[in-house]
Amino acid sequence: MSGKIIAVGFGPGDEQNMTLRARQAFDECQYIIGYNTYIDLIRPILTTQEIVRTGMTEEVSRAQEAVKLAEQGHTVAVISSGDAGVYGMAGLIYEVLVEKGWEEEKGIKVEVVPGVSAIQACASLLGAPVMHDSCTISLSDHLTPWEWIKKRVEAAAMADFIIALYNPKSGRRTRQIEETQKILLKYRSPETPVGLVKSAYRDRQQVVMTDLEHMLEHEIGMLTTVIIGNSTTFMYDGKMITPRGYHRKYTLGEEKQPLKPHERLKEEAEPWAMHGGEAQEDAETKTLDSKPVRMIAEEALARLNGTTPDVMIPMFQEQPIFEFTVSPGVANKKMTASQLAALASIVGE
Amino acid sequence: MSGKIIAVGFGPGDEQNMTLRARQAFDECQYIIGYNTYIDLIRPILTTQEIVRTGMTEEVSRAQEAVKLAEQGHTVAVISSGDAGVYGMAGLIYEVLVEKGWEEEKGIKVEVVPGVSAIQACASLLGAPVMHDSCTISLSDHLTPWEWIKKRVEAAAMADFIIALYNPKSGRRTRQIEETQKILLKYRSPETPVGLVKSAYRDRQQVVMTDLEHMLEHEIGMLTTVIIGNSTTFMYDGKMITPRGYHRKYTLGEEKQPLKPHERLKEEAEPWAMHGGEAQEDAETKTLDSKPVRMIAEEALARLNGTTPDVMIPMFQEQPIFEFTVSPGVANKKMTASQLAALASIVGE
Repeated sequence: MSGKIIAVGFGPGDEQNMTLRARQAFDECQYIIGYNTYIDLIRPILTTQEIVRTGMTEEVSRAQEAVKLAEQGHTVAVISSGDAGVYGMAGLIYEVLVEKGWEEEKGIKVEVVPGVSAIQACASLLGAPVMHDSCTISLSDHLTPWEWIKKRVEAAAMADFIIALYNPKSGRRTRQIEETQKILLKYRSPETPVGLVKSAYRDRQQVVMTDLEHMLEHEIGMLTTVIIGNSTTFMYDGKMITPRGYHRKYTLGEEKQPLKPHERLKEEAEPWAMHGGEAQEDAETKTLDSKPVRMIAEEALARLNGTTPDVMIPMFQEQPIFEFTVSPGVANKKMTASQLAALASIVGE
Repeated sequence: MSGKIIAVGFGPGDEQNMTLRARQAFDECQYIIGYNTYIDLIRPILTTQEIVRTGMTEEVSRAQEAVKLAEQGHTVAVISSGDAGVYGMAGLIYEVLVEKGWEEEKGIKVEVVPGVSAIQACASLLGAPVMHDSCTISLSDHLTPWEWIKKRVEAAAMADFIIALYNPKSGRRTRQIEETQKILLKYRSPETPVGLVKSAYRDRQQVVMTDLEHMLEHEIGMLTTVIIGNSTTFMYDGKMITPRGYHRKYTLGEEKQPLKPHERLKEEAEPWAMHGGEAQEDAETKTLDSKPVRMIAEEALARLNGTTPDVMIPMFQEQPIFEFTVSPGVANKKMTASQLAALASIVGE
C-alpha cells in the first residue's frame, strides 16, 4: 500500500500569507519533513504530526526519507518556504522517484501545493515593482556554474527584465552580488531603483530602498531578496513602482479617457502591434535598428582580438531613452550629459 | 478622513489556493472592485460588501474608483487573479495615486496582498518545471510594443531560462505565439517539454503536455499559461520536471552520498564556483569560449550586410550538450546526428 507525498510551499513564513490548501495539507499528514528553520516557522500550527527536521544541505536525504515513509503508506508533507516548485523541494522529490523507476498510477501519489514565492512577497512590501516581465535568478553557485549564472544575469539585464535575485549572498559567497552589480551597471542607469527585503513577513522583516549604484552599501545576506527595477521603474514616496505599459493609452489623472474602451483595442491605437502576422515597423525602429547590430559586431570582434570594449551594448538601448519621455517617474530621473547627447542624436535634433 | 485600498491577489481562483490574508482583506472591506470574471470567481465568499464590477479594458477606471471611495474614507479591495503585483492592479493603483501627488502618510493607505501567480499555480499541476531560473513574459502587445516583447523572448531563450508566457493568445492576437515558437526553436530543441495549463484550479481546468515543436497543435487561449522548459527539463510519467542543479553533487539513488554535507560546500567540490572573487575557468570553458564569440560576430556582420544567418547562436550552446550526460531525463532525449558530432568534437573524441 502506497502513501502520498505533498510538497507544500508555505509562503513567506507567516500564517496570514499561507494558502488554505497548505494548512489543510499539514492536517492530512502523519509526517512533516523540513529544514530546521522552516519547521520552526510552521511549528505553531502543527498538532500531532511526527516531525523530521534536518540541516541545510540535507535536501536529498529529506526527499529520500519522504519517499521511504510514503512507501510505507504514510502521507508526508515536505515543506519549502515560498513555493515548493521554485528552487524548492518539489523537483528533488520527483527526481528521487524517477531514479527509482516510479509510476504514479501504481505507486506513491504526489501533490505539489503552490505558495507565494519570495518575488511576490517582497514585491508587495516594496510597492509594485514587478508589474511587467520579470525573472528570478539564484546567485548560488552551489549547484550551478558561476559562468552560466553570470550569462543569465547579462541576458536579463540586456532585455530589460525586472530581476529578483534569490540567494544573493551567504557567509561564504560574497563576490557574486558584486559581480552581478557590475554586469547590471553596464546596461542600466546607476539610479535604477533596487529594493532589498530581508525576512519578508517574518519577525525580523527589513525593507530597504536603494539604487543600483548604492545597493552594496546595505546589508545583504542569506535571507535577503534583491529586486532590481527595469528601465521604467521609479521611486515615489518610499515605494518602488513599475508602470504597466511602455506605451500609454491612458490619461491617469483624468476621468474621461482619450480612448474609449472599445477604441483601445483597435489597430490604429496600437501602432506597435503585430497585425496580420507582420510587425509594423515604424520609422523610429528602422533608424535605430542598424546601430546596435554594428556595435554588437564590434564588441564581439574586440573580444576575439583579446580586448574588451569599455561599454557593453544593451539589446534594448533605445528603450530607456524612450521611456524618459513617458514614465510617470520622470521627475525623479536624472540624465547624464552623455545620455542627453545620445537622446538628442537619436531623435535627430 | 482617508480610507484604505487593498490590492488583493486571490491566487488561481479557488478558495483553497487563496491566502488567509486575502480572505481577511475581503472581510475588512466595504467595497470590492474588480473585473467581471474575477468577481464571479470570489462571489461565493463575499458577504455584505458593495460590489463594483467592470469590463476587461476598464482597469484605469477601476483604480480611479478605488481612489475615490478611499478618499471618502472607505476600505476598498481591488482584486486581481494570481498576484496583484504581477501584471495586476497594484501598480495601476499606485500610478493613479502618484498622478494626484499622493503621500501615504497624509492620505490613503495602500496594502498589497500577494497571491499565488499563474506561473506557480500552473507549474504545480505540471510537475516541477520551474525549479531553476525562470521568467514571465506577457505576449500581449496591448501596452507594450511587439518588437520589444520579441527581443525579450529571444534573450530568455538564449540564456536558457524556463519561460512562462502570460496572455499568449486572444481572439484578436493569434500570431504572437507562433512568432514566439519560431524564436524559441532557434535556441532550443524541438523536443523541449512544454506545458499548457488552462484555468488552473478552476472548473474547466485543462493540463496538456506537449513539446516545442507540437505546442501549436493544441488549444491555446486567453486563459492558458504556457510553460516552456529549459535545456535540462524532461518529461517523465506525464510530469514535466526540471532538475535543480546543472552539476550534480548528489547520487539520488543512494542513501549514502559520495560527499558528506560539510564537504559539499568546500571549494574542491565546486570547481565551477567563484572563489575569492575570481571565477575559476577550467579547460573546458576555455576551449568553448572563443567559438560562440566568433559566431556572434559573424552573425552580426551578416546582418549588417543585409543577410540573415541561417541559425542563431545560443549564448548557452555548451549547456544542453553537457546536460545530456547528467540529466536524469537522458533516456527521453533524442539527439540529431549534428548534435552528436558537435558533442564528439567538444569532448575531443
